[in-house]
Amino acid sequence: MALPLHLSRRNFLVTSGTGAVAMCVSGNAGGYTGAEMRAFAADDTLKGVSKWELDTPALCVDLDKLSGNIATMRTRLADMKVVSRPHAKTHKCPTIAKLQLAGGSIGICTAKISEAEVFSAAGIGPILMTTSNVTPNKIRRAMQIRKTNRQFIQAVDYPQNARDLNDAAHEAGIVADVVIDVAIGTRSGVPAGDEALALAQLVDKLPNLKLRGVISYDGGAQHIKGFKNRLETTLNRFGPSVDTFERMKRAGLNTEIFSGGGTGTYNILPKAPGVTDLQVGSYIFMDCQYIEIGSESNADIFADFTPSLTVVTTVLNTYFPKSITTDAGAKALTLNKPGPWVIGEKSFEYNAGSDEFGVIRYETAGRSYKVGDKLELIVPHCDPVVNEYDQVYAIRGDRVEAVWPIAARGHSQ
Amino acid sequence: MALPLHLSRRNFLVTSGTGAVAMCVSGNAGGYTGAEMRAFAADDTLKGVSKWELDTPALCVDLDKLSGNIATMRTRLADMKVVSRPHAKTHKCPTIAKLQLAGGSIGICTAKISEAEVFSAAGIGPILMTTSNVTPNKIRRAMQIRKTNRQFIQAVDYPQNARDLNDAAHEAGIVADVVIDVAIGTRSGVPAGDEALALAQLVDKLPNLKLRGVISYDGGAQHIKGFKNRLETTLNRFGPSVDTFERMKRAGLNTEIFSGGGTGTYNILPKAPGVTDLQVGSYIFMDCQYIEIGSESNADIFADFTPSLTVVTTVLNTYFPKSITTDAGAKALTLNKPGPWVIGEKSFEYNAGSDEFGVIRYETAGRSYKVGDKLELIVPHCDPVVNEYDQVYAIRGDRVEAVWPIAARGHSQ
Repeated sequence: MALPLHLSRRNFLVTSGTGAVAMCVSGNAGGYTGAEMRAFAADDTLKGVSKWELDTPALCVDLDKLSGNIATMRTRLADMKVVSRPHAKTHKCPTIAKLQLAGGSIGICTAKISEAEVFSAAGIGPILMTTSNVTPNKIRRAMQIRKTNRQFIQAVDYPQNARDLNDAAHEAGIVADVVIDVAIGTRSGVPAGDEALALAQLVDKLPNLKLRGVISYDGGAQHIKGFKNRLETTLNRFGPSVDTFERMKRAGLNTEIFSGGGTGTYNILPKAPGVTDLQVGSYIFMDCQYIEIGSESNADIFADFTPSLTVVTTVLNTYFPKSITTDAGAKALTLNKPGPWVIGEKSFEYNAGSDEFGVIRYETAGRSYKVGDKLELIVPHCDPVVNEYDQVYAIRGDRVEAVWPIAARGHSQ
Repeated sequence: MALPLHLSRRNFLVTSGTGAVAMCVSGNAGGYTGAEMRAFAADDTLKGVSKWELDTPALCVDLDKLSGNIATMRTRLADMKVVSRPHAKTHKCPTIAKLQLAGGSIGICTAKISEAEVFSAAGIGPILMTTSNVTPNKIRRAMQIRKTNRQFIQAVDYPQNARDLNDAAHEAGIVADVVIDVAIGTRSGVPAGDEALALAQLVDKLPNLKLRGVISYDGGAQHIKGFKNRLETTLNRFGPSVDTFERMKRAGLNTEIFSGGGTGTYNILPKAPGVTDLQVGSYIFMDCQYIEIGSESNADIFADFTPSLTVVTTVLNTYFPKSITTDAGAKALTLNKPGPWVIGEKSFEYNAGSDEFGVIRYETAGRSYKVGDKLELIVPHCDPVVNEYDQVYAIRGDRVEAVWPIAARGHSQ
């Protein structure tokens, strides 16, 4: 089973429209630096530069595939009577957030207050911050956002935190919108049940807070392999959150938001009663981790969305048998597993364990490679890879159409 | 053996001067954002802000320990009649590079052309770029640096690349300095022996290149556990590089530079004949990976240098038994193993596998923890962690003395 599965995934990469041919070009292109490309972007003269001419490692997103993924998510969710509130921690890019909103999403999520600041400053209103702000400074920052952006909502998971938020909102002269973060597992959130209900009732009573509903995210469920297993585990673990949500509703509390889920459970969580929207993130880009979880229609491959995000890298060394060294290592691709996949090559094993270099081992290659050649990679896990780059090249065909700043890159606070 | 070794490392962390007490403070400090701290830095009013008041995750370097590590390296290498040419890919920070140069280093190394640009623009002359520039654009960028910085040296490992560099230098109207990168293992460099000698002879003949010597780095040797094993393996694998260096010398070629080694082999490589300088990087910061390799005097712990680099993180959740969630995950700490170590807590197992959260599991804790408390961590592997931050807080005692931009952060091209 292991080998066919492995091969079927590689075949998917070769044939999925990610491009079977010309995934490698010879290295005598002129090349453009990041600074040059930004300058081009400013005066709009960059159109037509080939992605193979970019200085590498270069982070690229295929615009047609990105748009296709946004449209697919909209259609699929509409069939299930829910909407998306995509997690912007995946792309950290206001331009992409605006594409998502234009494509039917009702808002975005952020994980960190520094991300929320970037997106709010970029003119994006509906932001739901899914992590609690627990220090006085971050609470102050959250209230600053809320003062200028009435659509900003933040999570709360402790009674003391609710009181702190209420005090800060009072001091800022506002009423701040909050959702109760109900835990699934033990990472974040208030335990489902009595504690969560009591917290919601506290929030409802605090004069400077407005309860908007519930968020409940199951990080561990997204990458469960096999659709049936993922479905059963997800709905089982989500049960206590549903119970809590229904108890809140029966208690007369505001439950207009019941948000959760991710790309791996986008077609599972809508089966739970009451869910309003999904915090999907990776669907716009896809990555090696998601490809291998399998989908409802395909046990081996999660092909509901198309890989749109790639890193272009340059071959640096071919002296040694069955080995190719590239210029994209852990600082360009992270250490997530499975490692990067070389588009168009079925048997390449790409190791990004070295900080500065990628090392490919192979038995057979689809062509011969020489120093300066370019390779294109599907990334292991999209979120942390994007966070390594200041910009992403927006590609149509194989030409650069725009250079998008990853404005919230490095915003881990 | 496993348990005592494990405990002895944790004891080292508790007692090494990294600080046994007050590694956790309660969370009611006011807090300062990165932007505020940069503003403070500009008008020099930041002195005295406690590191426990910084918004987290916050990257900090202890100035006394940093200076101590620089002084220790200088003294130890002087005893062995070699000097250091530290690798700036570790810190990516011109301020630290200048401290190293002031502390006896003869220059710095960079891995990428975009790093070399940053350090050269910051006024640092002696830069040795250890990776070859193989594309026309990167070669052009290298020549641009060399035009304004006569101390810039770059690596070469292919005859065609030497010819390309020569052509570009000719076009730029300069003579460019190069070193031959002699491979150890199969990652980068020209194979030792005939091919390397022929390449050196080619470079020597090319009119617009000046041969300066040899670099030869063994990435795989640095983290071999146990000093005796590391010593024997390193010198054994370095043998062909020494032979090549000596053949070059006998052939009348310039061999003024014979550079290699790293922090793990800083007191090993000088035993090889002819070595002039060491490309040490991590010694200034140290990290969990290096602590556990053991040293000449201590089989368990590499304590020749003191951990100076830490990440301060905030406790976000303590609802669940034997579990603490923090705000520093993979985007703040990377996925390198061993995972981060919590200073002052011997039995904590910190998992940074989640993008946005750290999850600590423990059996016993030295104190009780509540939401908003701060923890300080030794990082898994310093280089890629530094690359996640725009700035590092320079700490004296527990007060911020300066905010240093990590100017080459994200410069993976």
